[in-house]
Amino acid sequence: MAFDGTGFAGWQRQKEDPTIQGVVESKLARMTGGAITLHGAGRTDAGVHALGMTASFETDSTIPCEGFRQGLNSLLPPAIRILDVAEREKGFHARLNAKGKSYLYRLTAGGIGLPTERLYTYHLAKPPTTETIQQCLALLIGEHDFSAFEATGSRDLGYQGGRGAVRKISRAELKSGEGQPLPLTIELAGDGFLRHMVRNIVGTILEVGKGRMTVADFAAVLAGRDRAAAGPTAPARGLFLKEVYY
Amino acid sequence: MAFDGTGFAGWQRQKEDPTIQGVVESKLARMTGGAITLHGAGRTDAGVHALGMTASFETDSTIPCEGFRQGLNSLLPPAIRILDVAEREKGFHARLNAKGKSYLYRLTAGGIGLPTERLYTYHLAKPPTTETIQQCLALLIGEHDFSAFEATGSRDLGYQGGRGAVRKISRAELKSGEGQPLPLTIELAGDGFLRHMVRNIVGTILEVGKGRMTVADFAAVLAGRDRAAAGPTAPARGLFLKEVYY
Repeated sequence: MAFDGTGFAGWQRQKEDPTIQGVVESKLARMTGGAITLHGAGRTDAGVHALGMTASFETDSTIPCEGFRQGLNSLLPPAIRILDVAEREKGFHARLNAKGKSYLYRLTAGGIGLPTERLYTYHLAKPPTTETIQQCLALLIGEHDFSAFEATGSRDLGYQGGRGAVRKISRAELKSGEGQPLPLTIELAGDGFLRHMVRNIVGTILEVGKGRMTVADFAAVLAGRDRAAAGPTAPARGLFLKEVYY
Repeated sequence: MAFDGTGFAGWQRQKEDPTIQGVVESKLARMTGGAITLHGAGRTDAGVHALGMTASFETDSTIPCEGFRQGLNSLLPPAIRILDVAEREKGFHARLNAKGKSYLYRLTAGGIGLPTERLYTYHLAKPPTTETIQQCLALLIGEHDFSAFEATGSRDLGYQGGRGAVRKISRAELKSGEGQPLPLTIELAGDGFLRHMVRNIVGTILEVGKGRMTVADFAAVLAGRDRAAAGPTAPARGLFLKEVYY
């Protein structure tokens, strides 16, 4: 599924505020006539968007697969779209069976940010140096303990699996577009991501891109595994969950 | 200025609904302490966006030029941004002095439209044939009577200048991006545009792109100067006023 996270308090069901999980579960309940738990491949934060989120649920409904796609798309608000549906073996779980994920972080740089992009990009008044950003990204490739980029308090919230903060990053790229302001996209792919990890990596890398930290500083932050040494968390609105791999 | 037209009832001041002109005029009044009339280079419809709209006003305020940019940007909602300001000779008028304009019309094609693009593109489930669209666009270049693409009732609303419906188009291009859905952009530049002209041209060209009309039909519509023969008006959300030339 794809969604515009702007008006939602993130993925995870909440009592008060609208969430992606909450809205989709309510439409599934309406379609099947019974309560359904939807397991997302991840728990995106408030304001984070998705181009290819996945989620699974179990049902004994006789509605065919494609009926769920069409039915949900007619019931859901336009901010959430079901792109594809498929039947899987019993016990399949969108998060537990996932082999990896990719994320995009969209930036624009230079001058004044365009109103029509304000909800889907993070705007920087001055273009960062792309060379140092690329050097930082190269340092991320491979298996590392990403404690320095993990949201404070994540472990208490049960975000940790058995592997601690070690994750393997397989792709870390910066792509420049054309135009004024200049569009820049940071893409990360890996076998898993800690809470706020992409936003904390981007926030810290931008400190380097702005000349406030060196590439060596960035390497030391990664190696030091100390959240307090890293940069700020980049805003949610620039982050897109691109794809979940199985 | 740039703006996100989503939440506005178009450019022109209205009593009830929020409009770009109305909001900017109210902030100018607050800054200068007197009523100010803002003359826009055009009157965009509800939901139409701008990357480079221009507008002029007269004032005897002592606030320096750059002070207006900064002041307005601090007072205006984020959906409207002042990109640049300049002082012009007395009598300068953003619309009357304009030599031409360019517009973009953004489409996406194939599958399901992405929620994060839904407010800024017109989505087509099936990709149109780009060759026939390009042939239609080529027919627009030069000076033509565009009555066939003028909004019904425009003349009663005072949209007509002294030159009737004759306008000169200097650029008419289709650009394809990459991705799924496929991004497509139609760009038109000319010495002036009738009300709904870009949206009516795009709506009719898409009839050709979908195979419902031929390129010859399109040529006949243009030559026939009959609005009833043209296709539907493409939705406002895909249209961006890109630039005003002086």
